Amino acid sequence: MITHKIKRSTGTITLPYLKLDSGEELTNVEMAYERAGKGRSDPILVCHALTGNQNTVGTEEEPGWWRGLIDYKGYIDLDKQDVITFNVLGGCNGSTGPTSIKNQALYGSEFPFITVRDMVRAQREALAVMGISHLTAVIGGSLGGMQALEWAVMYPELVDNLIVLAATDHLSDYGVAYNAIARKAIIEDPNWNDGHYTKDHFPSQGLSLARMIGLLTYRSDTLFNQRFHRGEKDSWGNDHKEVAYQVESYLLYQGEKFTKRFDPNSYLYLLKAMDHHDLEASRGPLPSVLSRFNKTVQLIGFQGDLLYPPEEMERLSKAWANVGTDVSFHKVETVYGHDGFLTEYDKWGKLVSEAIE
Amino acid sequence: MITHKIKRSTGTITLPYLKLDSGEELTNVEMAYERAGKGRSDPILVCHALTGNQNTVGTEEEPGWWRGLIDYKGYIDLDKQDVITFNVLGGCNGSTGPTSIKNQALYGSEFPFITVRDMVRAQREALAVMGISHLTAVIGGSLGGMQALEWAVMYPELVDNLIVLAATDHLSDYGVAYNAIARKAIIEDPNWNDGHYTKDHFPSQGLSLARMIGLLTYRSDTLFNQRFHRGEKDSWGNDHKEVAYQVESYLLYQGEKFTKRFDPNSYLYLLKAMDHHDLEASRGPLPSVLSRFNKTVQLIGFQGDLLYPPEEMERLSKAWANVGTDVSFHKVETVYGHDGFLTEYDKWGKLVSEAIE
Repeated sequence: MITHKIKRSTGTITLPYLKLDSGEELTNVEMAYERAGKGRSDPILVCHALTGNQNTVGTEEEPGWWRGLIDYKGYIDLDKQDVITFNVLGGCNGSTGPTSIKNQALYGSEFPFITVRDMVRAQREALAVMGISHLTAVIGGSLGGMQALEWAVMYPELVDNLIVLAATDHLSDYGVAYNAIARKAIIEDPNWNDGHYTKDHFPSQGLSLARMIGLLTYRSDTLFNQRFHRGEKDSWGNDHKEVAYQVESYLLYQGEKFTKRFDPNSYLYLLKAMDHHDLEASRGPLPSVLSRFNKTVQLIGFQGDLLYPPEEMERLSKAWANVGTDVSFHKVETVYGHDGFLTEYDKWGKLVSEAIE
Repeated sequence: MITHKIKRSTGTITLPYLKLDSGEELTNVEMAYERAGKGRSDPILVCHALTGNQNTVGTEEEPGWWRGLIDYKGYIDLDKQDVITFNVLGGCNGSTGPTSIKNQALYGSEFPFITVRDMVRAQREALAVMGISHLTAVIGGSLGGMQALEWAVMYPELVDNLIVLAATDHLSDYGVAYNAIARKAIIEDPNWNDGHYTKDHFPSQGLSLARMIGLLTYRSDTLFNQRFHRGEKDSWGNDHKEVAYQVESYLLYQGEKFTKRFDPNSYLYLLKAMDHHDLEASRGPLPSVLSRFNKTVQLIGFQGDLLYPPEEMERLSKAWANVGTDVSFHKVETVYGHDGFLTEYDKWGKLVSEAIE
């Protein structure tokens, strides 16, 4: 058996200075990245979602989160394309964020407010440091899709193709509502301590609860019901802490697991950025904003997505078509809901291949 | 102007003894009720939802939660019908529950596990004490609809018509998931103290969070989005406690308001009963269970109901029709989602009128 080794490098770009939308400034901004491919000049930029990271392709031992889409001879073919992903600004996987050190102390909740546009600006500057001035495509799902949309509007001359999955031009009030509850779960944890928690006094229960709330929106009711069939762990008992149904046990497990890999402050900053994202804001009406990018756009929505309903993506698609842009919208029929963009690649991967041809 | 005074009485029935599904026994069980109407022999029994109470009709000064449906000349006409509602067993509005006293101490989390069937059994015995041995109809929505379903199956000979709104024969795993998260929110509150909280150390943040989680399922995304339009309270800031969007402010307000009127232990017991409800359990396959009630059934589902999808109610309706019961299903088109059963009476009230004619 021949394994096709994928050329992959990881590292960190340091930006001496970054001005944020809030007016605040960050210095020595680190942007952790993964680059896969042969070092071509016009790579594809991947933007990751809320709890994702830059390990999009990963290694043979630890395949990345989008390896099902991006591989040697994959829907995005690493034999033909290079792919770069940055950990988002404000994240907690190597890029500057609340877990970074400033003046010998953690930023923590002293980290400044950041926006999706700040994330994109930081990526653009990091790419410039890498000598990359043009992108074959920008692609992302969920919060990554929001970044991709901002990319097209902020730097239209740098991007040939825009591919957005499970994301819309703004988060709905219903989406903000879920985020608000996740936020309250974290800041009401007795270990929260205004963001100045320690490893020994860590708001893990609040973060775990926040994750559980998120999970309700990532997958559809159908998938939950198909998977668990009301399976019981123990059907009686007066102890409210007792796990009675498998679905509860699953959520508790997923919540706890998440606390091992994510920082509560970072989670809060990214939620706020998501809430705040609005392609129109400070720019004027949507049609004029969309008309800034007139190359090709592929929008892919997923049935049952509570956070970014396909109907809203279709509305965006029509608005974009109305200003003369070459835009396609496709709704994927799935029981996965929002998480559709992380699975069932056979259903929609070809749309991505075609978009970047 | 003539006001039609509605004859209404409230009170409490005491049952010396109640055997629960768990095998445990309660003594001196109090069942708080409201009775409206002229004292006719075959009243309509209303079953209330999770956070409802027995004040269904209420007074002129404080109209009850279903006054829009049940009134003098209403869809349920108090000129022609009597209506009785009990506060559920395990509730906190006068009926025996975790806030009741046993041996000079609060039950609190020592209250036994209760089921929807226990709630129904207690109502049936309380009605017997009142001298009522036959019901024109049993009607309820949500957890009240689950009780109504159990009524038809447990006491088919006592019920002429069954009217179920926004409820199904079992709670889905997706529904259990929401309840699981609400449960965790309460028991992780530092004031929870294994259910032995006090008025001064009350788990209000956890209960508030639980309420907020519930609200996400009571109303549809469309309604949230139509109502708030991403209205801002303050669009900047680094303080995660800051309210940035009106929808967040609304949820926080509703959460806090709820803590003034509901008991956390009671909430947990009722959630567990809801999780556990399954018309089939210990009875055999659904068709044989449904065949126990062969009078008339009206099922009303609401578009966008995440907890009790109308499609599931339609499935139940077909199963019931298959065993020869006179059953109708109607799906109400609405932006309210689950809460449709508490509003827009003009859309579906007539179905109720017709069902009890």
